[in-house]
Amino acid sequence: MKLAVSTAATIALLVGAAQADEGMWTIDNVPTAAIAKATGFTPDAKWLKKAQLSYVRLAGGCSGSFVSGEGMVMTNHHCISDCIAELSSAEKDYQADGFLAKTRLEEKSCAGIEINQLIDITDITPQVEAATAGKTGQDFANARRTVLADIEKNCAGGDAKLRCDAVTLYQGGRYNLYKYKRYQDVRLAFAPEASAASFGGDPDNFNFPRYALDMALLRVYEDGKPIKSPHHFKWSTEGTKEGDPSFVIGNPGSTSRLRTIAELEFVRDNVAPSFLFWAQERRGRLIEFGRENADRNREAFDDLNSIENSIKVWKGRQMALADKEFFGGKVKAEQDLRAKIAADPKLSAEVGDAFEQIEKAQARYVQLYQRLIHLERMRAFDSVLAMNARLLLRAGDERLLPSGQRLREYGDSRLPALKQRLSNPAPVHADLEVALLTFSLTKFREQFGPDDALVKAVLGKQSPDQVAAAAVKGSKLGDPAERLRLFEGGKAAVDASDDPMIKLMKVVDAAARQARKSVEEEVDAVVEQAQARIAKARFALYGDSVYPDATLSLRLSYGKMQGWTELDGTEIKPYTTIGGLYERDTGAFPFDMAKSWEAAKDKVNMATPYNAVSTNDIIGGNSGSAAINTKGEVIGLIFDGNIHSLSGDYGYEPKRNRAVMVDVRGMTEALRHVYGAQHIVKELGLK
Amino acid sequence: MKLAVSTAATIALLVGAAQADEGMWTIDNVPTAAIAKATGFTPDAKWLKKAQLSYVRLAGGCSGSFVSGEGMVMTNHHCISDCIAELSSAEKDYQADGFLAKTRLEEKSCAGIEINQLIDITDITPQVEAATAGKTGQDFANARRTVLADIEKNCAGGDAKLRCDAVTLYQGGRYNLYKYKRYQDVRLAFAPEASAASFGGDPDNFNFPRYALDMALLRVYEDGKPIKSPHHFKWSTEGTKEGDPSFVIGNPGSTSRLRTIAELEFVRDNVAPSFLFWAQERRGRLIEFGRENADRNREAFDDLNSIENSIKVWKGRQMALADKEFFGGKVKAEQDLRAKIAADPKLSAEVGDAFEQIEKAQARYVQLYQRLIHLERMRAFDSVLAMNARLLLRAGDERLLPSGQRLREYGDSRLPALKQRLSNPAPVHADLEVALLTFSLTKFREQFGPDDALVKAVLGKQSPDQVAAAAVKGSKLGDPAERLRLFEGGKAAVDASDDPMIKLMKVVDAAARQARKSVEEEVDAVVEQAQARIAKARFALYGDSVYPDATLSLRLSYGKMQGWTELDGTEIKPYTTIGGLYERDTGAFPFDMAKSWEAAKDKVNMATPYNAVSTNDIIGGNSGSAAINTKGEVIGLIFDGNIHSLSGDYGYEPKRNRAVMVDVRGMTEALRHVYGAQHIVKELGLK
Repeated sequence: MKLAVSTAATIALLVGAAQADEGMWTIDNVPTAAIAKATGFTPDAKWLKKAQLSYVRLAGGCSGSFVSGEGMVMTNHHCISDCIAELSSAEKDYQADGFLAKTRLEEKSCAGIEINQLIDITDITPQVEAATAGKTGQDFANARRTVLADIEKNCAGGDAKLRCDAVTLYQGGRYNLYKYKRYQDVRLAFAPEASAASFGGDPDNFNFPRYALDMALLRVYEDGKPIKSPHHFKWSTEGTKEGDPSFVIGNPGSTSRLRTIAELEFVRDNVAPSFLFWAQERRGRLIEFGRENADRNREAFDDLNSIENSIKVWKGRQMALADKEFFGGKVKAEQDLRAKIAADPKLSAEVGDAFEQIEKAQARYVQLYQRLIHLERMRAFDSVLAMNARLLLRAGDERLLPSGQRLREYGDSRLPALKQRLSNPAPVHADLEVALLTFSLTKFREQFGPDDALVKAVLGKQSPDQVAAAAVKGSKLGDPAERLRLFEGGKAAVDASDDPMIKLMKVVDAAARQARKSVEEEVDAVVEQAQARIAKARFALYGDSVYPDATLSLRLSYGKMQGWTELDGTEIKPYTTIGGLYERDTGAFPFDMAKSWEAAKDKVNMATPYNAVSTNDIIGGNSGSAAINTKGEVIGLIFDGNIHSLSGDYGYEPKRNRAVMVDVRGMTEALRHVYGAQHIVKELGLK
Repeated sequence: MKLAVSTAATIALLVGAAQADEGMWTIDNVPTAAIAKATGFTPDAKWLKKAQLSYVRLAGGCSGSFVSGEGMVMTNHHCISDCIAELSSAEKDYQADGFLAKTRLEEKSCAGIEINQLIDITDITPQVEAATAGKTGQDFANARRTVLADIEKNCAGGDAKLRCDAVTLYQGGRYNLYKYKRYQDVRLAFAPEASAASFGGDPDNFNFPRYALDMALLRVYEDGKPIKSPHHFKWSTEGTKEGDPSFVIGNPGSTSRLRTIAELEFVRDNVAPSFLFWAQERRGRLIEFGRENADRNREAFDDLNSIENSIKVWKGRQMALADKEFFGGKVKAEQDLRAKIAADPKLSAEVGDAFEQIEKAQARYVQLYQRLIHLERMRAFDSVLAMNARLLLRAGDERLLPSGQRLREYGDSRLPALKQRLSNPAPVHADLEVALLTFSLTKFREQFGPDDALVKAVLGKQSPDQVAAAAVKGSKLGDPAERLRLFEGGKAAVDASDDPMIKLMKVVDAAARQARKSVEEEVDAVVEQAQARIAKARFALYGDSVYPDATLSLRLSYGKMQGWTELDGTEIKPYTTIGGLYERDTGAFPFDMAKSWEAAKDKVNMATPYNAVSTNDIIGGNSGSAAINTKGEVIGLIFDGNIHSLSGDYGYEPKRNRAVMVDVRGMTEALRHVYGAQHIVKELGLK
């Protein structure tokens, strides 16, 4: 379970009082009374501070945490599989064989990974409110963008080792500045074989019982040396039993729990079917591409994993939105809220036509949506080279403007990450690039028709295959040196380039920018302001025992180790054991147990708990989160949710929504007896 | 546009009075007054008889018609593309190059094509009602199946040259026996290049303006000689102009215009998304499979065409069902009907809980649907060899029973077509078989999970790839001689066979039969009886100026040559010209004009009408239908509908629903000046 699709955040509040175990709470506003009631434990300031400083965010959208004093970070294998693929070659395949550094000198650099440690949270609501006071529509959006960019820039103060993100909470009810220490030298210490990490593959993804060792250990370096990390979670030796408390520390990506029914209908009728329609063909193409030979299989591996994950996520969401009971509950909640507002003249006046505004904006969104996703969100240009070309093109144009007036992702504070991305030496696979770009150009023509002016401008008198092959094969953007040359050279260098991929991106850039601008102005800005009015009324009606929708920022979830009862009455137990892995092994992908486990059969304790489920309220982006006990010790490593958790985008359903983790005892047993990583076990503070 | 998916027919009546030009009318009940009013022409018995006897049905689901006295049949290129592929080889590719027999001796046999000429229609309602009187539920279904099979068998009287189909009309309000002359020796006389026939390919499919020569000419033989066909349509020399009447004679496959809202919701929420989800991945796999090399491209060509067509059909249907205005209209129509029934105590008593029964049956269908499509409709076994294996297995078992007690497709009257299918020498492409079977077994596991008992029984300790490769590569069912041996040898021969594909089909046969039985008993039978009650009330309320839903049997549609106004105000003219083809040519697939057309550039008249649209109410299955004028002359050849026609499954929308045809003048010009087929032009009665 990776962070699926990071769409424009519509940020919202919970409707009423939280269910038991519900909530993704900001670390500076945890519901201590509810936690005490549910778990018998009251987290104090010290416990919370330790949680904050032990937690890290992986810049790609996963969570992690320090687990030793020498910069060791625990996260999921699937969070760093790009790195593993990049380190691999035909000779040495770390996806297949796993990786274990015997000494620190053997630790290998993950060029694409940036790790952020959250060192400070400050409230910037007053500054933002001052800068936007009295403004509406596009003026409001511009003023807000400018002030947020200024605040981020001033916070980092030009220091490339800092990263500052302005986080919009409660639909703009509150703005916080999250200040991170930025680490860009991250190395791989341990990763099991892909066949152990993602045992069960796509069939088992979002399912349980489960038997996966979805873990990896990284180490953070600075100035060529491992950092000191005094704030970290030790590993528990006892682990948990059914009913024990579990706290999850991580950065859930996004939720949509307080979108209005009009917004959810838009998702149900447009976003979900459009994505699944596109993604399923992409999946089919990737699978067949990979069936050709082993090299291609490896080249397509990550893209395939990622799209299959997203497909399950969206299928789950679509199921939830099509479920009459679940969606009916959402409809009823909105009706209740609107009735309460209508009954209160003051609230009623404040909210005004907010719901109608949102409804109208959604109708407009239907008209704008396909241009947005095909042109701006690159669905028509499904290619690493194309993404780099766009990035270079826009980096050239945007840097001519003051930071605050740029497209947000080109603000000064984002430039270091951008540059790191461009310097990533990961190879670009030309055949795969051609296959995917061909696919996506074909969909582009299918969507808008061969007579569309932009389709004609892109394809001319050629087929999607021809355009893709020419752009990929003629492009030098696979070379990091060339990318950096164009980045450093700015607009002049980019304008002078005759790279065919840059030329292709130039053809659509104006239309793509316009597609984005239209949605930002005619949909996002309208919805946001309407949502803010609704949010105020919600506060007034339901009090402040609420949490904001997820925003890829640190959240605490509390819950307990617990199975569930399936719709057909089946009881699902909360733990699986290592013995179950051996029983489930068929020898055939994706149920083929790794060789190291076969070899260790007589050494491992079959009764050791391996995977487990808890009631924690999590979502994509929580991948790699530590689950800890009241003592702040690691009891597990979150890597998935069950199939029922996919409704979590829209609400928490306590009966069946479960988080899936690797049990700490399973990880310890594996490091000790399967991988012979005694030096790591020792570093983790175990014997 | 091919007949998309021939699901279990839910047969229904039109709700109220027909719109102008609406209706797929049985040839024995045409609305002469309405036709006279709309066209100024009243078809008489002679005109109708000629239409009936000139029309033919292609056993695969297309329409056609005799166009000369010597057995020449006109239909669409896409209706016979299987034959063209089978006749092609690496040396001689008729898809790429087209085919023209200079003499009758050069005409090539299309082994898979059977042509049926409708020679008689009789009313068998009394017999069916007598046999089913007083029966309900499974008893009713059994009794009806038995009597229909008996009637079909007695009608054909063991004569393999006859085919008799009992056709259920008006949801069982009427039963007719359609008696056909069966022709199994069908040969190819002319087919243009695929690049001419389906110019514009998938992007242009269901679109207009259009520039496709989707035609083919066959000839029917008997005893080694061309048959005489005194009843046939001559080709018009003048053609039509905007506003002229157009009559379409063909066999629309199925419509669902009178399904209840509960049934349409089932289609919208289950059938459509499930199909599109599956089909899009299949499409992606086929495309990537075909990108590998030219042989594979050719092998995958027909499957790809067919799935892309079905995808557009289902996408169009899903759009219609998700359209608030269109679906709202359906909801309102049902509300009106129910209100009228409720207001009439007698009708109310007769209809009883019919709507609620259908609603409950749909809820049950949700539970049964995935087993049905994966096991019985072969979605899990997407392989020609697997289909043949199932056919042989069941033919062995079923023939032990009396004809009336068999699964319907194994009744005595169906055996000749079955045998013809088994003896078809078309090659089976092992790589493609493995790819598709792997795909579909993977989806099967994905749907039911690796712990499902049947999934385990099918896969054992193997992967879908391994199971597919072993079954395909070990099977001898690619050989027609082996298939016929097993067919003739019956159950004993099949039981004795160790063919791995037959063994695979044996593993799932009991479950597949059960899945079908459950749906037939718990859904179909319930819905059918409830629909019959509703149908009676509808008759009582709306009179008999109605037509039954399409059932792949002969229908007449009337209308006129007319363009339409797009939703955004664009006017679409009713004709394109040959000159437009030359303008649209890009040289790149699928907009690559055929070489013969390039060569003929100076000979053809650019102003000749090429494709055209009319208001005729048609649907999949009408492909290959002749459009004729009041004189019974061919004015065009139906090959598609526009994108708005896809709502036609659920209702006729007169403003924008249009049929797409090749204009007769375009066909004549092509035969004369592009293909040099003067002998055919002459046979068609032209100069």
